[in-house]
Amino acid sequence: RTCTHTLLFAQLITPDGTNHGLHGFLVPIRNPDTLETYPGLIVGDMGEKIGVNGIDNGFIMFNQYRIPRENLLNRTADVTEEGVYESSFSDPSKILGAALENLSAGRIGIMQESCHSIASAVAIAIRYAATRTQFGERDNEISLIEYELHQWRLFGYVAAAVVFRMYIENFSRVYLSIVEKSNAGMKVDNLSEAVSEIHAMVSCSKPLLTWTVLSAAQQCREACGGHGYLKSANLGDIRSNHEATVTYEGDNNVLSQQTGNWLLRQFHAARSGGAVDSPLNTVTFLMDWQRWLGAKFRCTKTDELKSREFITTTYRWLICYLLKQTHEKYESEIAKGLTKFEARAKSQVYKWRDLTKTYAEYLAIIFFLESLDKKEKSLQPVLTKLFSLYGLWSLDQHLVELYQGGYSQGESLARLLREAVLELCSELKGEVVGVVDALAPTDFVLNSVLGKSDGNLYQNIQKAFFSHPGAFERAPWWRDVVSLPRSKI
Amino acid sequence: RTCTHTLLFAQLITPDGTNHGLHGFLVPIRNPDTLETYPGLIVGDMGEKIGVNGIDNGFIMFNQYRIPRENLLNRTADVTEEGVYESSFSDPSKILGAALENLSAGRIGIMQESCHSIASAVAIAIRYAATRTQFGERDNEISLIEYELHQWRLFGYVAAAVVFRMYIENFSRVYLSIVEKSNAGMKVDNLSEAVSEIHAMVSCSKPLLTWTVLSAAQQCREACGGHGYLKSANLGDIRSNHEATVTYEGDNNVLSQQTGNWLLRQFHAARSGGAVDSPLNTVTFLMDWQRWLGAKFRCTKTDELKSREFITTTYRWLICYLLKQTHEKYESEIAKGLTKFEARAKSQVYKWRDLTKTYAEYLAIIFFLESLDKKEKSLQPVLTKLFSLYGLWSLDQHLVELYQGGYSQGESLARLLREAVLELCSELKGEVVGVVDALAPTDFVLNSVLGKSDGNLYQNIQKAFFSHPGAFERAPWWRDVVSLPRSKI
Repeated sequence: RTCTHTLLFAQLITPDGTNHGLHGFLVPIRNPDTLETYPGLIVGDMGEKIGVNGIDNGFIMFNQYRIPRENLLNRTADVTEEGVYESSFSDPSKILGAALENLSAGRIGIMQESCHSIASAVAIAIRYAATRTQFGERDNEISLIEYELHQWRLFGYVAAAVVFRMYIENFSRVYLSIVEKSNAGMKVDNLSEAVSEIHAMVSCSKPLLTWTVLSAAQQCREACGGHGYLKSANLGDIRSNHEATVTYEGDNNVLSQQTGNWLLRQFHAARSGGAVDSPLNTVTFLMDWQRWLGAKFRCTKTDELKSREFITTTYRWLICYLLKQTHEKYESEIAKGLTKFEARAKSQVYKWRDLTKTYAEYLAIIFFLESLDKKEKSLQPVLTKLFSLYGLWSLDQHLVELYQGGYSQGESLARLLREAVLELCSELKGEVVGVVDALAPTDFVLNSVLGKSDGNLYQNIQKAFFSHPGAFERAPWWRDVVSLPRSKI
Repeated sequence: RTCTHTLLFAQLITPDGTNHGLHGFLVPIRNPDTLETYPGLIVGDMGEKIGVNGIDNGFIMFNQYRIPRENLLNRTADVTEEGVYESSFSDPSKILGAALENLSAGRIGIMQESCHSIASAVAIAIRYAATRTQFGERDNEISLIEYELHQWRLFGYVAAAVVFRMYIENFSRVYLSIVEKSNAGMKVDNLSEAVSEIHAMVSCSKPLLTWTVLSAAQQCREACGGHGYLKSANLGDIRSNHEATVTYEGDNNVLSQQTGNWLLRQFHAARSGGAVDSPLNTVTFLMDWQRWLGAKFRCTKTDELKSREFITTTYRWLICYLLKQTHEKYESEIAKGLTKFEARAKSQVYKWRDLTKTYAEYLAIIFFLESLDKKEKSLQPVLTKLFSLYGLWSLDQHLVELYQGGYSQGESLARLLREAVLELCSELKGEVVGVVDALAPTDFVLNSVLGKSDGNLYQNIQKAFFSHPGAFERAPWWRDVVSLPRSKI
């Protein structure tokens, strides 16, 4: 309610009636001295939200509202004093792309925030699991963390928290070095191809991270039972505030479609024997797509599945398979006479959508592995286990496609993969508290009665309940609800 | 904070030192005239929660607190004046079971509530999808409901809302008729077997319904985008208030284990050539478990998969397969020397847990089908489509086991099943608004700016924003944030 200017995307129509599509404008909406809105505008607040209520969201309605020509953000295109449109881009669709590209930084910021949110959520749930005892043999109650089901519910998210953090650290470094060079006017090889690849990477990774963190927060809440449902556990607020990220800065379902466009272009190039434009090297392997598609599952021991070779090979097979499926589906819809827009809409479910998710998981894995090799030797064993768990726990979601596409037949793939996941959970049990201690913020920032680093769960809960204002007082209106003795006279 | 008595489950220890396990007691905690707590108790409020804040949750700590012997709830067991324990049950584990059995009614109530919650959530999201336009060819924006991805995200939950409602209506009728007869002192055939079967049914159905409704509410929120994130959409409150149900009245992960105990007992009986105790007829088919396990996928057209024969046969195969897997896993852990408790804990993930979920889905399907045949002819076509969609949309989650267990090989099962799901989505597009209109409460109860039955989405949103108190006013502290001109003197 104190906003004086807004950055607005709107259609740019020049005096000759031509619509040049969406452009960015800087629009004054309130007088900075009085905070009154300007005539021609209806500006108001949209009211309370599920979370993020520290930031207001407003609406604006425009009625014949005029702004100066100079308020067009004109880095990619401008309008002269004579009303003539000028752009350094020849393809109109590229102009919008160039303007929207600035959103990548915001999306990377969301991913960094998401890494903090999942770290907090798993820290609370793992510390609770290690200290909360329930059931057991006879009178010996055991900690929740001893139960395989509880490990399986949580440890995959701990692994995701670590893999995502190292992925985003590594990727941010790559991204910023390109931005810095470009802003400094230095030459960046294949800049426009790199920008496209980064856009494709961000457009599927933001959905993968924000959705995974959302389900992590939910699973962590449930794993803390009724205590997790207390506001003082902080899992509800972590979840509600995080939830907005799956929608803003590009709704996940819509944004990830961008990645599919780029991947299909690269696949098309590879199929036609052309070059794959992948300066960041994320899909160079598509040049050999037929060889990758020929891969078959041949493991006989769980240790083989835990290896980086198995996990990366299987992901490459999956990406090639889903690219082929998506491509064929799209082309078959075009052949039926559908427009490109319609054909794309009919290729999302089970195809395009799964493809972009798979590619995002693959990105997390390869960027993590690159960082892993540079870490201290002493950290590598636990990080390797977390990597294997994340990889197999994620591949578990793609078993149908692995069977459907003939990567494997029979029972051994699903059985071995799932046995490996449970073995890794068991192997990580002793280390997982240390892992979340490394990820978690301070107790003050974590702000959870269940997740304090001292491990004194029961005392901390008692203290929180006892110090709650009015915890032991009668309600002020207590006299209204008791049936007081009345005079018999 | 006005509670005067509590129903408490606690260990009953008689003067001879014997612990008879958990029993129910009626315990006075506050003086009804003054609402002061009694000496020996520390009673307080647990503070704010994620939802359901209209009901307070408290804690009690007991220190040498005495209550009269008569306050033992003594329907199943009593203690004489001389301190001697007496029970009509010979097996101590049965005593607790009999006391806990009263919780079934509460769990059925939760399922009925859940049916209302999912009806509200899908009504809001479907009405929004039908009226909200976004993207399209050139300047023609189209409704969200036209997008296959959007249909697929929502219609499965619409089908679940209908199937669950008819399942729970039918099941409640069966349950209440048994309770009424039993309470009236009439003879009920196989009463104790029926009670066990009902307990098994409720213990997996409450988890299935509450979890499905929770993810429905979340998907509906996301499908309404940023508008869904507004408090005035009501999807946040529907979700937060519903969320507690996955934890209370038996945490879903723990409660559903009860169903596995019962199913494994029936499977054991069937394997030993004995009788399956299933007076409600839900697992009588286990008598032929070997025949069901011999079933193979042989369909070649999507219409065959949409049939009730395919769906029920496939579920029976799945239940038999998962029973066999769970049984073998459990026995192999016992053979390794684990205790029953440990072996059970090691059989949950991918086995026991999947088994009970599958059985719950099967229950919804068979109880729905029984009701379907009694409905008006004019309703049967749309209800049949909703049934097929629910069945196949649910089976989609079990494709891995269908491949792993050899029910099918090759690509056709997954391909045909998923094609059938998308065909059903497309076929239901024209009817789904009518379906949610039939399910939804009145606009006043629905209380959502996005889901009003008049379909005037944009006008309703505008009206809500405009009538928000203070929507157009400056913040009271506006003078504190503007840089006022200062006197130059």
